[in-house]
Amino acid sequence: MATNNVTQAVLVEEERLASGNRIEQWEVDHGEKEISLTFGERLGLEDLYSLNVWRASVGELLGSAVLVFMIDTIVISSYETQNKAPNILIAILIGITITILLLALFPISGGHMTPVISFSAALVELISLSRAFIYIFAQCVGALLGALALQSVVSHNIAQTYSLGGCTLTVIAPGPNGLVVTGIETSQALWLEIICTFILLFASVWLAYDHRQAKALGDLVVFSIIGIIVALLVFISTSLTGKKGYAGAGMNPARCLGPAMIRGGHLWDGHWVFWVGPAISCMAFYIYTKIIPCNHFQANGYRYDFFDLLKALI
Amino acid sequence: MATNNVTQAVLVEEERLASGNRIEQWEVDHGEKEISLTFGERLGLEDLYSLNVWRASVGELLGSAVLVFMIDTIVISSYETQNKAPNILIAILIGITITILLLALFPISGGHMTPVISFSAALVELISLSRAFIYIFAQCVGALLGALALQSVVSHNIAQTYSLGGCTLTVIAPGPNGLVVTGIETSQALWLEIICTFILLFASVWLAYDHRQAKALGDLVVFSIIGIIVALLVFISTSLTGKKGYAGAGMNPARCLGPAMIRGGHLWDGHWVFWVGPAISCMAFYIYTKIIPCNHFQANGYRYDFFDLLKALI
Amino acid sequence: MATNNVTQAVLVEEERLASGNRIEQWEVDHGEKEISLTFGERLGLEDLYSLNVWRASVGELLGSAVLVFMIDTIVISSYETQNKAPNILIAILIGITITILLLALFPISGGHMTPVISFSAALVELISLSRAFIYIFAQCVGALLGALALQSVVSHNIAQTYSLGGCTLTVIAPGPNGLVVTGIETSQALWLEIICTFILLFASVWLAYDHRQAKALGDLVVFSIIGIIVALLVFISTSLTGKKGYAGAGMNPARCLGPAMIRGGHLWDGHWVFWVGPAISCMAFYIYTKIIPCNHFQANGYRYDFFDLLKALI
Amino acid sequence: MATNNVTQAVLVEEERLASGNRIEQWEVDHGEKEISLTFGERLGLEDLYSLNVWRASVGELLGSAVLVFMIDTIVISSYETQNKAPNILIAILIGITITILLLALFPISGGHMTPVISFSAALVELISLSRAFIYIFAQCVGALLGALALQSVVSHNIAQTYSLGGCTLTVIAPGPNGLVVTGIETSQALWLEIICTFILLFASVWLAYDHRQAKALGDLVVFSIIGIIVALLVFISTSLTGKKGYAGAGMNPARCLGPAMIRGGHLWDGHWVFWVGPAISCMAFYIYTKIIPCNHFQANGYRYDFFDLLKALI
Repeated sequence: MATNNVTQAVLVEEERLASGNRIEQWEVDHGEKEISLTFGERLGLEDLYSLNVWRASVGELLGSAVLVFMIDTIVISSYETQNKAPNILIAILIGITITILLLALFPISGGHMTPVISFSAALVELISLSRAFIYIFAQCVGALLGALALQSVVSHNIAQTYSLGGCTLTVIAPGPNGLVVTGIETSQALWLEIICTFILLFASVWLAYDHRQAKALGDLVVFSIIGIIVALLVFISTSLTGKKGYAGAGMNPARCLGPAMIRGGHLWDGHWVFWVGPAISCMAFYIYTKIIPCNHFQANGYRYDFFDLLKALI
Repeated sequence: MATNNVTQAVLVEEERLASGNRIEQWEVDHGEKEISLTFGERLGLEDLYSLNVWRASVGELLGSAVLVFMIDTIVISSYETQNKAPNILIAILIGITITILLLALFPISGGHMTPVISFSAALVELISLSRAFIYIFAQCVGALLGALALQSVVSHNIAQTYSLGGCTLTVIAPGPNGLVVTGIETSQALWLEIICTFILLFASVWLAYDHRQAKALGDLVVFSIIGIIVALLVFISTSLTGKKGYAGAGMNPARCLGPAMIRGGHLWDGHWVFWVGPAISCMAFYIYTKIIPCNHFQANGYRYDFFDLLKALI
Repeated sequence: MATNNVTQAVLVEEERLASGNRIEQWEVDHGEKEISLTFGERLGLEDLYSLNVWRASVGELLGSAVLVFMIDTIVISSYETQNKAPNILIAILIGITITILLLALFPISGGHMTPVISFSAALVELISLSRAFIYIFAQCVGALLGALALQSVVSHNIAQTYSLGGCTLTVIAPGPNGLVVTGIETSQALWLEIICTFILLFASVWLAYDHRQAKALGDLVVFSIIGIIVALLVFISTSLTGKKGYAGAGMNPARCLGPAMIRGGHLWDGHWVFWVGPAISCMAFYIYTKIIPCNHFQANGYRYDFFDLLKALI
Repeated sequence: MATNNVTQAVLVEEERLASGNRIEQWEVDHGEKEISLTFGERLGLEDLYSLNVWRASVGELLGSAVLVFMIDTIVISSYETQNKAPNILIAILIGITITILLLALFPISGGHMTPVISFSAALVELISLSRAFIYIFAQCVGALLGALALQSVVSHNIAQTYSLGGCTLTVIAPGPNGLVVTGIETSQALWLEIICTFILLFASVWLAYDHRQAKALGDLVVFSIIGIIVALLVFISTSLTGKKGYAGAGMNPARCLGPAMIRGGHLWDGHWVFWVGPAISCMAFYIYTKIIPCNHFQANGYRYDFFDLLKALI
């Protein structure tokens, strides 16, 4: 008699702990680990036909649209209010926005909102590569919608001044003597993308990927940390270059793609930087997770392991 | 029947508590306490051949690199944004950065990131001296990488103005009439290093070392306290000397070494201060932990005890 | 069979709760309550020969040293950064510092750091009068060390301007036309000491003394409340007098003694106020705890009761 | 056998939760519900002879004294520091003060500190009308003491400028060209009192009265919510009237009475507003608690029901 009751108490306790980290849902979705897998299984091709994955990608799409809309309006509002240090205000508001969007989207799709997280999550085996590609596609469409939404609400002269918050190497910013075109070198921008994206993965996203840490800290704290780190990196990357008006490291290729497709022109200059930089960081982060003692990282298992995938390919 | 289940429930509860403070992993790693130990065992020489220790040191390496990169970019960004009180902004941002890096690195390597913590942790027997030396070596290499990464992204005139955030007694800061060389006396800097590092150990790191406190407060609170204390000490040490531009107490010899090796020049002046000061503080802190009632401190035991080590040496 | 285990589980739970409030250690230290006690036992004279008490007093000594060093450097730094409202900054930083020091010292010595808490804790029977006197002695020595440490790091002209943060009725503050001597009346200062110290005891320290409240809230919250109340009182007492430069209510005779012994001079003027005021508040607080319904206060018992002590004396 | 023990464990857990809300003490004090009561029993006249009630009222007296002292000094300090937005600072500091005083006084007397809560608690049957009148009397005496304490520490010219923080319709505030007399209309002030007091009861005190809510949230959160709501109301009521210097809605007749008795003069103008307004709000709040589904409110029972009291009177 007592046995059942006590067991139940233990289960309740475990249930309580588990609710702190819903990443485990992935594990439950994909069942037990298998040793011998076909190439298609390693790619997780069955996710392409999964209605749930496509439904979740709607969350990613809308999240990216809201993100693009919010980031760009925050940048515009901060400069328009003539704040003496718009950098700081922009950084804080973007950090808060990202934290809240993460809280809202995490239970639906995992709350990626940037190809950086989708791709790195696929590399560290939290999701399949197929799911990652669906998400990245949804994020790009969402960013397009966000840029369109933005264009429909801002006044004409603001739209011309701020280029709708695209990720550019050369930016047209409002100066004391009319518009001023400022820019940074391509190599400098590439290094900024690589370093900032790596710090984002290394210092904050990592906490969400590690089950034990995510459980111990809770969603709110982990997402706040991600928001704070993004805010810090935006603040640093804009101030560091010494070029006022540069919108900072992208750390999100999708949000750079949307405005570029809507506005075109100089927004396409060096656009590849915002895709190559983060991709390099994701690979570096993957290697880092392989080097550190493996008992410190409890991820989904080896089903989607990228090294095994490469071996199967060869 | 019920017995096992209830016992299990107690274990689950203990497991939950334990997860709040993973310092205990050290204890598990090193097994039961032994009374008679060789000199090599007291030094923990087997850690030199442990792959896990070297893997963990990769975390220390990257953590120190990120720390150096972030601290220096925060200092530069804060001055560049023309804030009226850059001291306060710098202190707050550094405090936040350190808190988040501690959270990210603690489960991997213990999250030292400064020789001060590695050395004091070895003295109070939480880790072996061998592990401490590996960590300190990794921290120095990491600081070097961080300084290199910084040099690759900052513009030329910023690099000249800020000396890449090295720890200096005499600093070249931007003044109203061009660059101004300001400095503090060596003895004053040494006292600042000793006092600030001791306050850091006494008031905050102490909470992480004491198992009972760390459990009761939780990782997030303990690391936030360390971040706040570092922020306070940075604010105080920069303002106190009355010399604008002095980067404040180092409390981290490794982060001073990195920029000095990259930039050289006046960054080497009085560099020994940033090693000798913290070392004295660590010894003072060790003596303090020996004086206070021993039942208030539950550390790893006497295996790596520094006094015993000295006795064995003699 | 199950009975024992479940009982154990309950005990573990109670243990966990108990760890939230280590004031109970006093109870355990002093064993069961006795009705007939000698005068020496009521004074707790055996504490004078207890090595543990003297060891714990080292914590008090260093804590007071750090407190004096931090408070004074915070005051100096805040004024030096030319903040428009240094009062607010000083109050916030002092509040944070006190909260963290309380967390660090509470498990070692109880975290008194001021004769006010040691004396009031003795009156409400949490510790013996002997222990209180040892602590107060250690606090005075610590404050002396803190003032010495401060003198070793501040520059000469800062030392002259700020009188090393002593508690004074007449203060030399930096004014627009050189140094200005400002002051408040002795009676006003005495009332400020009495009222502020009583509010400190009544509104915050009280939460730490009452076992039930301390358990329900947890260490962190209780110590944060004490820090906030101290911050509020510092803010109010400095602003209220309308005299810029007055360092606010002391609420800590030891920290006033240290700088006075180092610097001497006008710091001794009215120094008795900072001892008499808090002493009166402690007596008032003791009478208050005797008046309110006794079932609302679970302290150590009647062993060290002050009224009984007076009776035994007569 | 085990069943009982497990049940016991569950009870202990519930006990632990219950300790978070000591309002239930009222229930225990007054025993089982009786249907037929004399008029005296309905008034709770036996509380007039209860030593415990009078002792608890000492807590109310001192709490009100501290509250008056703190609120008035906060107002004065905020204006004196020349802050650009004293409204915000005043609101935040008053909110914090009230939260902490609630925590300190709740286990002693219930932590009313204002006739509004005492009267509304009597109406919703949590305490007897007799206890409420004793408390209100103690609060008025306390407010008088607080105003006296304030007068003993403030400098003469501050005392003249701020009228010791009384609740006034016409206030003398420091303006650019000497003192300026500003004021609001009586009807406007009355509406502000009614609306603000009702929002206070409806949005925050309600959480403390409803056992289920108070248990689920815990003391700290409930009292913080009350503090935040008070802060918001102070901020709104001062900003809304567009009259700088108006000290905001009173929501506490006792704290208005104290300064008026000490200073007299124009502080008595419209003093009735600060008694009539809150009284109307308490009645409205009582009707509200009768209208909403009764299963949403678990109070003490029907012993002190106000409607029954009126019936018994007629």
